[in-house]
Amino acid sequence: MAQARPAPSQPLYERRPGQATSLVKVGDVVFGGKTVVLIGGPCAVENLDQVLDIAGHVRRSGGAMLRGGAWKPRTSPYSFQGLGAEGLPLLAAARAATGLPVVTEVLDPRDVEQAAGAVDMLQIGSRSIQNFPLLREAGASGKPVLLKRGMMTTVHEWLNAAEYVLAAGCRDLVLCERGIRTFENSLRNTLDVGSVAVLKEVTHLPVIVDPSHAAGASRFVIPLARAAVAAGADGLLVEVHNHPEAALSDADQSLTPEQFSQLAESCRAVARAIGRDLQA
Amino acid sequence: MAQARPAPSQPLYERRPGQATSLVKVGDVVFGGKTVVLIGGPCAVENLDQVLDIAGHVRRSGGAMLRGGAWKPRTSPYSFQGLGAEGLPLLAAARAATGLPVVTEVLDPRDVEQAAGAVDMLQIGSRSIQNFPLLREAGASGKPVLLKRGMMTTVHEWLNAAEYVLAAGCRDLVLCERGIRTFENSLRNTLDVGSVAVLKEVTHLPVIVDPSHAAGASRFVIPLARAAVAAGADGLLVEVHNHPEAALSDADQSLTPEQFSQLAESCRAVARAIGRDLQA
Amino acid sequence: MAQARPAPSQPLYERRPGQATSLVKVGDVVFGGKTVVLIGGPCAVENLDQVLDIAGHVRRSGGAMLRGGAWKPRTSPYSFQGLGAEGLPLLAAARAATGLPVVTEVLDPRDVEQAAGAVDMLQIGSRSIQNFPLLREAGASGKPVLLKRGMMTTVHEWLNAAEYVLAAGCRDLVLCERGIRTFENSLRNTLDVGSVAVLKEVTHLPVIVDPSHAAGASRFVIPLARAAVAAGADGLLVEVHNHPEAALSDADQSLTPEQFSQLAESCRAVARAIGRDLQA
Amino acid sequence: MAQARPAPSQPLYERRPGQATSLVKVGDVVFGGKTVVLIGGPCAVENLDQVLDIAGHVRRSGGAMLRGGAWKPRTSPYSFQGLGAEGLPLLAAARAATGLPVVTEVLDPRDVEQAAGAVDMLQIGSRSIQNFPLLREAGASGKPVLLKRGMMTTVHEWLNAAEYVLAAGCRDLVLCERGIRTFENSLRNTLDVGSVAVLKEVTHLPVIVDPSHAAGASRFVIPLARAAVAAGADGLLVEVHNHPEAALSDADQSLTPEQFSQLAESCRAVARAIGRDLQA
Repeated sequence: MAQARPAPSQPLYERRPGQATSLVKVGDVVFGGKTVVLIGGPCAVENLDQVLDIAGHVRRSGGAMLRGGAWKPRTSPYSFQGLGAEGLPLLAAARAATGLPVVTEVLDPRDVEQAAGAVDMLQIGSRSIQNFPLLREAGASGKPVLLKRGMMTTVHEWLNAAEYVLAAGCRDLVLCERGIRTFENSLRNTLDVGSVAVLKEVTHLPVIVDPSHAAGASRFVIPLARAAVAAGADGLLVEVHNHPEAALSDADQSLTPEQFSQLAESCRAVARAIGRDLQA
Repeated sequence: MAQARPAPSQPLYERRPGQATSLVKVGDVVFGGKTVVLIGGPCAVENLDQVLDIAGHVRRSGGAMLRGGAWKPRTSPYSFQGLGAEGLPLLAAARAATGLPVVTEVLDPRDVEQAAGAVDMLQIGSRSIQNFPLLREAGASGKPVLLKRGMMTTVHEWLNAAEYVLAAGCRDLVLCERGIRTFENSLRNTLDVGSVAVLKEVTHLPVIVDPSHAAGASRFVIPLARAAVAAGADGLLVEVHNHPEAALSDADQSLTPEQFSQLAESCRAVARAIGRDLQA
Repeated sequence: MAQARPAPSQPLYERRPGQATSLVKVGDVVFGGKTVVLIGGPCAVENLDQVLDIAGHVRRSGGAMLRGGAWKPRTSPYSFQGLGAEGLPLLAAARAATGLPVVTEVLDPRDVEQAAGAVDMLQIGSRSIQNFPLLREAGASGKPVLLKRGMMTTVHEWLNAAEYVLAAGCRDLVLCERGIRTFENSLRNTLDVGSVAVLKEVTHLPVIVDPSHAAGASRFVIPLARAAVAAGADGLLVEVHNHPEAALSDADQSLTPEQFSQLAESCRAVARAIGRDLQA
Repeated sequence: MAQARPAPSQPLYERRPGQATSLVKVGDVVFGGKTVVLIGGPCAVENLDQVLDIAGHVRRSGGAMLRGGAWKPRTSPYSFQGLGAEGLPLLAAARAATGLPVVTEVLDPRDVEQAAGAVDMLQIGSRSIQNFPLLREAGASGKPVLLKRGMMTTVHEWLNAAEYVLAAGCRDLVLCERGIRTFENSLRNTLDVGSVAVLKEVTHLPVIVDPSHAAGASRFVIPLARAAVAAGADGLLVEVHNHPEAALSDADQSLTPEQFSQLAESCRAVARAIGRDLQA
């Protein structure tokens, strides 16, 4: 499994001259077309009431898809690590209740099969961008994959990580810019909107943006989201919580349902200004 | 002149609760109001025909103000250093022909008085962000000042540099984000659109964005410009050249007049989507 | 397994006032005492002759321990990925021939048990610094662990990654600085010798330095190695190859056996100058 | 004055094959030879007693040269800005009393002539690394110049800044690494010891290191100083204060005279270990 694969004549991620952006379908959701996909949900799945309540809000506010973390990568071993596999049925219940497809992060190659059986799309998080066994496992899972950029990963390395997923068989891959680590500390990370423009030229893969982790504070999420759409992003991945102040993780950066509605409205207007729309 | 000034009770740059963005007037142009100011022009003033031709294009395409470099800060002493003081009358001629106010960069405190006599706004460039004698001189010149962020300057340091200008007497100061230096090299610099959002909270000074230096390549300028407007920028500073391929500096990132028109049209739509407009 | 662990009253990595550096024993080798441990060996194990030849050179030149990669993390899926588990018996043969304890990198939590059965110390590489399942698995393996800093990891995050290993039961943990990613590109990475000094204050864990990956070019390895010893490093991890020009990976930065001897001699002199010595 | 200079066939800073490091003489002090030059002194000249007392300590502890700031570049306009020109006679008095040559920083091209008349070497500080009018003025002053790297400056840009000084006529130029800005914040800056090794290959100019600004805290200065010498630095620039706790600037990072003595002793041992010595 650790063998080098024979290289194709050009990287699988590469956009050929004139090639359109690939359409990646997750249930009824389509990434890479004319419309912008809004994904919302909690950082971590905490309990059934929480995830059902938030999923309902996301649905009503114009979200097309639900995010929610079962396994959480945390800097400290003493922080809340997520519900693990026990979170998966809660996500399935939220999908059943709202019809929204669900994306969740996997951290361990040994969990990929179980997660793939429960959700609609597997997320590879920033800290796993060069976790090659995990990339291969996710790429071979048969599920669409959302690959977040590492916080200090170049576009070149990011595309090579994508190539691991593609080379393992996946054809439904979406990239997600989420801010990079720089010397500037006024926000949690520096959102690299330029990477969206660069990727649009280099790769046929759809590109979405996570403004929540870049901002690190809820009051900065909407301007970053608007900037992402204006730069050409195919979607947004946004943290929403029904009681942000009591969230078990990422409390500061989670939007309230009301703020999420405002974000949707504001980003819909920007999308239309550049000839696109928000996916219904 | 090198004495510490007595500190006011709060920094002069600081936005007080409820305070509106300051309106900075340069001729008929107003920064910080409802409309977004589009500034265009060549990196360097090369000759009269060039600057008149470009200024006419900028005017017709919806630009409200003209930029053009007389003194050019160049990494190598053997690169074209600009026309120096001889470029000032060419800028004055372009203003006379088009009615557009003119901004030009000063590098040396000994040139400030002469430049202030010839143009409408003085620019402090990225490499001069902590050139304190120059900040003081420009701040005392009686002219509006455009203060570009250094390419590795924190928002905190940038605001303190602004404080030098304000403490020297200037009340017409505009900040300009232009991309920061990070590990990522796919574009020339990383446009920090988040800084626009942060500054809108922290300071009453208008904030504009230079997408040209961040992009470093003309085909990425428009998406960055749109992102800047969507993030709340009060203006754009864009390099335009009538013959980019023959420009004496920054050839790669200069827009053609046609591209500049597209940028204006596209950014006008985004501005309207967020309840603003492009300044006429 | 993914549960948060109850936090101890102070982090396990933390140096208490007056506490000496912990002694980590790997066979006869001791990290953290008066002497500096020199580890040498190839980036990747390629075949038996190669590893035996290099191990002999390392032994004769004053190396106390052998490094060699079986599983190789590579940016591209099409690069040589190492021999995998088939490399382990080759390392064991080199140990048998020279008496040098062996350290090798693990990438996949599913390989930890097998690797732990074959080598003397498990290395967690830079790209795995926040691969939490792998940190837990290595920490529970019963083997000493060498934890390399991620190229994008703060000292704070690095220590928290160490805490994952310690919290899983490991008491024989060594940290390894290997250069960080910055805006400067004249070397492959920027060796952060200051981190050695900081860690000596904050943690009781031994700290070694890998000058090879920071340098990226063999002619810069010796000055970086000397600087590391002078800054207080407890050891060095150095890439050596008998035919660097033909190495399957990291060819540019591998020392020849002769250069490795020079490094040992030079670093021994510096170690003695600060009251230490090279471990025999 | 702002004209591009005709480029020589190779940059003036470039080391030709086989060329030795240039010897830069400042009074009896020689940079670039077999011995390492230790420069000590206060961040800012505060008064005559202070500078005389510190200069005496520097002399007795093995320092070969005195540093002291008259004009101080400060982030905030409300911080102590130095004594300005009034500090120059105090430095001259310290030189008269100890025989130590003196280096001081210039910030404003209009001050260069006066400073050059009073001290033995002009320092261009980090914030002025691309202040091209100042580089030209200092290069034409007839005095030796010490050019500190900007905290955001690549080696390539640094060498081009050096070229401005050399092209203006200066032949006695010394470079000074002082730490760069990275994502890591455990020290004030990240000392780039690798740059010393790179510069030794690329340029014939002597290279010294300022461990004080990189460390930002006195207890980390000695390990960084030792690392710099071990990496091949031709000198050290160290902040010393007779009462660090009362210093008007850089209080945290200034060594006491006793600590400075320890630094000298420790660095002398490291210098000898690599075949050099501390300059007497």
